[in-house]
Amino acid sequence: MTGSAAATGDRVSFQVHPSGYRHWRIALDGPVATLVMDVAEDAGLVPGYELKLNSYDLGVDIELHDAVQRLRFEHPEVRAVIVTSGKDKVFCAGANIRMLASASHPWKVNFCKFTNETRNAMEDAAEHSGQAYLAALNGSASGGGYELALACGHIMLIDDRSATVSLPELPLLGVLPGTGGLTRVTDKRHVRRDLADYFATKSEGIGGRKAAAWRLVDEVVPRAAWAETVQQRARDLAGRAAPGSPPAVAGTGIELTPLAKTRDDDHIGYQYVTAALDRARGVAEITVAGPDAGPPAGIAGVHEQGARFWTLAVTRELDDLILDLRTNEPELGTWLLRTSGDPSRVLGYDELLAGHAGQDWLAGEIVHYLKRTLKRLDVTSRSLIALIEPGSCFAGSLLELALAADRSYQLAGVFEDAGPGAEPAAITVGTMNLGPLPMGNGLTRLATRFLGDQDALAAAEKRAGEPLPAAGAGELGLVTFAPDDLDWDEEVRIAIEERASFSPDALTGMEANYRFAGPETLETKIFGRLTAWQNWIFTRPNASGDEGALRRDGTGQRARFDRKRA
Amino acid sequence: MTGSAAATGDRVSFQVHPSGYRHWRIALDGPVATLVMDVAEDAGLVPGYELKLNSYDLGVDIELHDAVQRLRFEHPEVRAVIVTSGKDKVFCAGANIRMLASASHPWKVNFCKFTNETRNAMEDAAEHSGQAYLAALNGSASGGGYELALACGHIMLIDDRSATVSLPELPLLGVLPGTGGLTRVTDKRHVRRDLADYFATKSEGIGGRKAAAWRLVDEVVPRAAWAETVQQRARDLAGRAAPGSPPAVAGTGIELTPLAKTRDDDHIGYQYVTAALDRARGVAEITVAGPDAGPPAGIAGVHEQGARFWTLAVTRELDDLILDLRTNEPELGTWLLRTSGDPSRVLGYDELLAGHAGQDWLAGEIVHYLKRTLKRLDVTSRSLIALIEPGSCFAGSLLELALAADRSYQLAGVFEDAGPGAEPAAITVGTMNLGPLPMGNGLTRLATRFLGDQDALAAAEKRAGEPLPAAGAGELGLVTFAPDDLDWDEEVRIAIEERASFSPDALTGMEANYRFAGPETLETKIFGRLTAWQNWIFTRPNASGDEGALRRDGTGQRARFDRKRA
Repeated sequence: MTGSAAATGDRVSFQVHPSGYRHWRIALDGPVATLVMDVAEDAGLVPGYELKLNSYDLGVDIELHDAVQRLRFEHPEVRAVIVTSGKDKVFCAGANIRMLASASHPWKVNFCKFTNETRNAMEDAAEHSGQAYLAALNGSASGGGYELALACGHIMLIDDRSATVSLPELPLLGVLPGTGGLTRVTDKRHVRRDLADYFATKSEGIGGRKAAAWRLVDEVVPRAAWAETVQQRARDLAGRAAPGSPPAVAGTGIELTPLAKTRDDDHIGYQYVTAALDRARGVAEITVAGPDAGPPAGIAGVHEQGARFWTLAVTRELDDLILDLRTNEPELGTWLLRTSGDPSRVLGYDELLAGHAGQDWLAGEIVHYLKRTLKRLDVTSRSLIALIEPGSCFAGSLLELALAADRSYQLAGVFEDAGPGAEPAAITVGTMNLGPLPMGNGLTRLATRFLGDQDALAAAEKRAGEPLPAAGAGELGLVTFAPDDLDWDEEVRIAIEERASFSPDALTGMEANYRFAGPETLETKIFGRLTAWQNWIFTRPNASGDEGALRRDGTGQRARFDRKRA
Repeated sequence: MTGSAAATGDRVSFQVHPSGYRHWRIALDGPVATLVMDVAEDAGLVPGYELKLNSYDLGVDIELHDAVQRLRFEHPEVRAVIVTSGKDKVFCAGANIRMLASASHPWKVNFCKFTNETRNAMEDAAEHSGQAYLAALNGSASGGGYELALACGHIMLIDDRSATVSLPELPLLGVLPGTGGLTRVTDKRHVRRDLADYFATKSEGIGGRKAAAWRLVDEVVPRAAWAETVQQRARDLAGRAAPGSPPAVAGTGIELTPLAKTRDDDHIGYQYVTAALDRARGVAEITVAGPDAGPPAGIAGVHEQGARFWTLAVTRELDDLILDLRTNEPELGTWLLRTSGDPSRVLGYDELLAGHAGQDWLAGEIVHYLKRTLKRLDVTSRSLIALIEPGSCFAGSLLELALAADRSYQLAGVFEDAGPGAEPAAITVGTMNLGPLPMGNGLTRLATRFLGDQDALAAAEKRAGEPLPAAGAGELGLVTFAPDDLDWDEEVRIAIEERASFSPDALTGMEANYRFAGPETLETKIFGRLTAWQNWIFTRPNASGDEGALRRDGTGQRARFDRKRA
């Protein structure tokens, strides 16, 4: 493994290591880390474009994602992260246009989803781990470059009479900024919407005092004072621990060791997670195994086990699997979610983590990582069906998989042929279902499920700790259907076959709407609303047609538009 | 004028009258009104389809929109509205598929927008006028038919062993329900999302007790007891006046007289509103005139003037103009918004209405209608630019036009050539800007503008009643730009030309995101999120391609899908 994000064969791998980064450097200086973006022009993930001016493709963002993740686990003492550029006079030119113009629609959509998730992960680190992000724009930040800055809590722009921030997507490419730009400008930075409108139509962008006055950046700093001021700000930020975040502990990070993964055309395997890829049915059959043994006796054991600790290991595997399937297997439209193992062990690990998440940095990080991974599942454009069978362990943290699913089937009784003496499948609500793992809308999956029905929510929560067989789970509304052995095969088969017969696009739209009932947040607005508009615009001839703006950019020919407003 | 919604020449007219309805009947019985949907198969708005099984097209919905509107103004004594069908065994089959399959993309989008607005108007009547809507499903309600029921506060389904409710769009047509169905199922009726998922994949729908148990309907009533139970429920609903709604007053309705409208290729004119259509520039230049005289001395005068009362008259004209331009002029992508008249008169009308809106039903109705019309502007996919010049009256209710705009330009000083002695343009914040006219997100346009900046909001609100010239308005952030005579022509010209040079789709997406910063509601979710997904799906080959599901419905051929998930 070289550690670079190169595609293996035709498949994209998300497993990278700083020793193999092509595009980023991490520098550590006590509580301050610096992420230097220095994109290698000739190291694009796929052939056909050069990553000039610190423009990026999926491979560049895979490294950023890895760096953000490692800072939390391997360097918990870091309190401030400077994001800056290794190029002279340019911070980042955003997503590479040639790459976007030549990419298929599903690739574009998946690319934007991943970059959005990585920006959210930066905000999550600031909010929950006290790792504040500071964008040090030592040159112009355009498009996705400025959106990267928007994900940081503090934006500094060099004042050299030429550096600007901009969102040139609309005037130059006929599309929207694809990584949350519009939403963060108004809803996070509170730029007035008419100024935001003007800003997003000025391809050359805005710099200097006006950029600060309009709130596009937090401060503008003369070149002469640049380096010193950036360091000073980082130290200031590092000095202010985020309220509620566990105390910084130097030198106690744990190593995110390489995942042991096997991968071929039909199968993906890790230690606890496996997926059988059934191309004929368009299905990925995913099984998540519970712990092999009980949890360590105390929190010290979690630190000692590090990446081997079951919850962290299974979360890393699931995260990688989601990214792999999303990117490499777009035609597997239905994911079946199964678990296997001992529910009480799962609950034991959950209790250990939940009991320490407020005090111990590692316990907190593992829970937040599980939270982010489940959110990744929520925004995955695949139909999710949970199958709750004898021998499964849908309890606490793993019950979240069933609650994230579009539907769940729990077997009533047992399979008379296969295991007549088995224990019937049960699900168990646990601590992890009651708060620590909120969805993007800010609610637990249980609360989202029982939106507007406080009684049903209370009834389900009250049964926490109690194994619920199919009848009880069905009555409480915790599973969708509870067929018995006689009906199971037929019902499940029909559900899967039907799903495969429907329009993949309509399913994506339906699921994206149903999964996020209730309140909206910056996050749900970005994935739900902004993304949907962007997807629409990407498909329109005015962007992607032969005469569209995205296709014609850089050709010297002007785009030709159908002027009808829709 | 026949009163039917027939297209005049190639243009669609939104002016209809119950005497000419082809598809609906209104029956009045004291506090209970009944809207009977009885669609004339052969009276489609455009040729090429038959409106079988109470399916509908834009023309059917124009009549419904008119009926909902007239019930509020002409029949304020009505407290409950039964929506039912004049057909045997079928309530409504939803939007006509042949119509949808043959319609252009902008037509589909515009059609869905209007039907959504009409459903919202029904909910607005229930919430603010105490006119409760009751869906009496005397037969199956599918797709848009069920969505019509979802807009009602109470849904009754006949139990005859065959009647069901359904959302068959996804399994049959490969698209989403286009009129808020998914959002209302989860966020309004709180159907559990996994049940909602199952429901939206069952083309035959769900009836009987299960429909009630799943909350898809409120009650299921045997055929024998149907007519009586419906009447009883309507009387019950009528007996419960909505809290806060003005008291019902029998026989005091005012007539919504026909609008005096002139319309040709270059010009649309009413009494107070005019629009010059400049096709070369892609611009509609809209001017809204203030009142010709001061307001009547008291609320009795408002009743006496009825539809002639300035605020009501100007609102009706603006509403009709928005609908006309949206539907008939898709290539006029930029609307310039001007006003002319005496600001103090506008404020006088505003004060009269605001002072009585809580007690007098008509004052309340006029304010709510203005609110709905401004919301219509907010969701209009055109760039809105307000031009604030000498002689204008952007005060109170008319200032909302500038606050709804994507950008505003206020002239500093006067036009030295044209009117050197004129009074410089001023804007005035008034009562109407401080609460009575909320946007779909539940905030005033001022609060949305200053989202996250309470100080700026308070500073603007504090200046209420004070005419603000360009410099002051600019400093307060109430206008975007305040150029003087020297720069005005150039700046405005460039803004308009630029707008016309951008991708119409990207502009629509950007505006839809920027206009609704802050909190989300059922309404913004429907227009922002659900609609965007639907628009995307409509454009995809899996729906609208030659082998797509929408195109192949009814042909006997199965759709062929690209199975890649995006």
